[in-house]
Amino acid sequence: MSKKISIAIDAMGGDNSPDKTIEGIKIFLEKYKKADDFVLNIFGKEEIIKEKLDLKTDLINIFNSNTVVSDEETPMTAVKNSKNTSMWNCIQHQLEGKSDISLSAGNTGVLLVISRMILKMMNDVSKPALAGLWPNQHGMNVVLDLGANIECNDQNLVDFAELGSALYKSLFPLDKPKVSLLNVGSEEIKGTEMLKSASKRLRELSSDENFIYNGYIEGNNIMSGESNVIITDGFTGNIALKTAEGTAKFITNNLKTTLTENFITKISILFSYFSLKKFKDKLDPRKYNGAIFLGLNGPVVKSHGGIDSIGFYHSIDLCYKIIKGDLMSQIRKNLKHSKSV
Amino acid sequence: MSKKISIAIDAMGGDNSPDKTIEGIKIFLEKYKKADDFVLNIFGKEEIIKEKLDLKTDLINIFNSNTVVSDEETPMTAVKNSKNTSMWNCIQHQLEGKSDISLSAGNTGVLLVISRMILKMMNDVSKPALAGLWPNQHGMNVVLDLGANIECNDQNLVDFAELGSALYKSLFPLDKPKVSLLNVGSEEIKGTEMLKSASKRLRELSSDENFIYNGYIEGNNIMSGESNVIITDGFTGNIALKTAEGTAKFITNNLKTTLTENFITKISILFSYFSLKKFKDKLDPRKYNGAIFLGLNGPVVKSHGGIDSIGFYHSIDLCYKIIKGDLMSQIRKNLKHSKSV
Repeated sequence: MSKKISIAIDAMGGDNSPDKTIEGIKIFLEKYKKADDFVLNIFGKEEIIKEKLDLKTDLINIFNSNTVVSDEETPMTAVKNSKNTSMWNCIQHQLEGKSDISLSAGNTGVLLVISRMILKMMNDVSKPALAGLWPNQHGMNVVLDLGANIECNDQNLVDFAELGSALYKSLFPLDKPKVSLLNVGSEEIKGTEMLKSASKRLRELSSDENFIYNGYIEGNNIMSGESNVIITDGFTGNIALKTAEGTAKFITNNLKTTLTENFITKISILFSYFSLKKFKDKLDPRKYNGAIFLGLNGPVVKSHGGIDSIGFYHSIDLCYKIIKGDLMSQIRKNLKHSKSV
Repeated sequence: MSKKISIAIDAMGGDNSPDKTIEGIKIFLEKYKKADDFVLNIFGKEEIIKEKLDLKTDLINIFNSNTVVSDEETPMTAVKNSKNTSMWNCIQHQLEGKSDISLSAGNTGVLLVISRMILKMMNDVSKPALAGLWPNQHGMNVVLDLGANIECNDQNLVDFAELGSALYKSLFPLDKPKVSLLNVGSEEIKGTEMLKSASKRLRELSSDENFIYNGYIEGNNIMSGESNVIITDGFTGNIALKTAEGTAKFITNNLKTTLTENFITKISILFSYFSLKKFKDKLDPRKYNGAIFLGLNGPVVKSHGGIDSIGFYHSIDLCYKIIKGDLMSQIRKNLKHSKSV
């Protein structure tokens, strides 16, 4: 790719911003110091950003935006009140073709509404969806929808499969995406009529060109690695993701209490310190930070608002990889294949 | 209670039965050797059971049933093919008032169909539901529906709240049940119209007499302990439960690999052995074995088919506690209160 990967970053969204976003940008620049195939377009209060990001490099551009989307803003009032905020200006920059992707840790509802309004939906996509990364036994899953659409029909789920498998291919170019529908059983007769209809269509679309359809998957197998693109409606996806987060937190908190409950157990940590650190690293939620809004004429990434600078760095890294893997071409290829079957 | 608690047990259902069921019964009899307020009515092949359960006690009755519900049986063919099986005879015994509750580790679909057909639904209950126990930070949750009804309306969810809070009160007589609806956000505006309507009705019903309605809860807070009766439709409940199981397995498998990966980490286990054992015990899924089918004219408990004898013992213990806590009276009280509000 001769054209540089350009990422629009809202420096002002989320807790402790712009401190954490700038810190995340610094980590990214350090990790990618040998690369010169990208440019970061940073939106926010120019003076503050310049003071905190005291760097002379042509890998960053800073664009002044005096206002910020507040946490109290609702999707209903967003369009009126969010014009020319740092978030809005990212998406606008992307619309004008000057950035390939936008990233914000700000108000999720507002980000979804203004992204959809400014970038508009792709032709041949019935609804946009929020996709997330989720660890599995062999690597990483893409799961969608995580909450953009609480009610979905069969066509929406089929579109999510096209979008999600394209995202998977852009992130893991050497893998073939295996798509499954989340259901209450793996047998054909299980689930709602809507799921059965989506399953039938996915079976028709299954091919080496776009994705291999792997049938239904149950909640206990999301992390088994047998499929790597998991499709569900936004209600179920949101509940599943948050239930997994809650379970992980419950177990690791209990483990922490266990290993620090007395002097003897504390000694045990000395012996397993490096292994436990590796264990903790593998499950570190900061590595999976960033939900990807798919189905618009350009991808938008939402970083968790409460995440720290390392988490924010991972979401910049995600943006970089998505564009490097040419997500939009992958999506167009999938949709074209879908129309022909 | 002068009348004895009588439990009908299908000795033949599930993997490795009747070996594991008989072993589970023995554990129960040993744990409750000082009690004489119960009787176990055991259904299955009399000769085999008598040979394995060589006990002279008036705490057990053995009833011969020559046939067993097969794993291949579907709910559609169950009624025709399941008559006089050990499972059928349990429920029939319960219908005749000779047992208070039935327990089986056999085919789930068949158990639900024949329980519903024989025992029939309670008046004032729109749909029966499967409830499960789920650990939380302070103790135990009741969660329903776990998969009996993949599509639900607002009245079903309200009924599940009456049933689930009654179950909670029968198991934990000193606690006041706090009921929440599982949703994608905790704010009033979140979720489907159906959930909003159920939420409104639960708020009207909230009182010291039946349950305190605690509003919406998100997946990440199921295990936080802020509510202890979590209500959802059977599709979402099934996905949430299995996702939690899969997440727990993923983490504990990774932890096991971590702690056994080399000589040094194995030494660490010596120092934390007793604490890690306590940790493992707390999360032991056998302790939560048993889904309770609620809303019929008598409770039926489904043990996990693949569980071992200790897990099966826990499901007998659950049956004992449910009847000791007078579940059916608690349900009738809740439904009566509901009609008056």
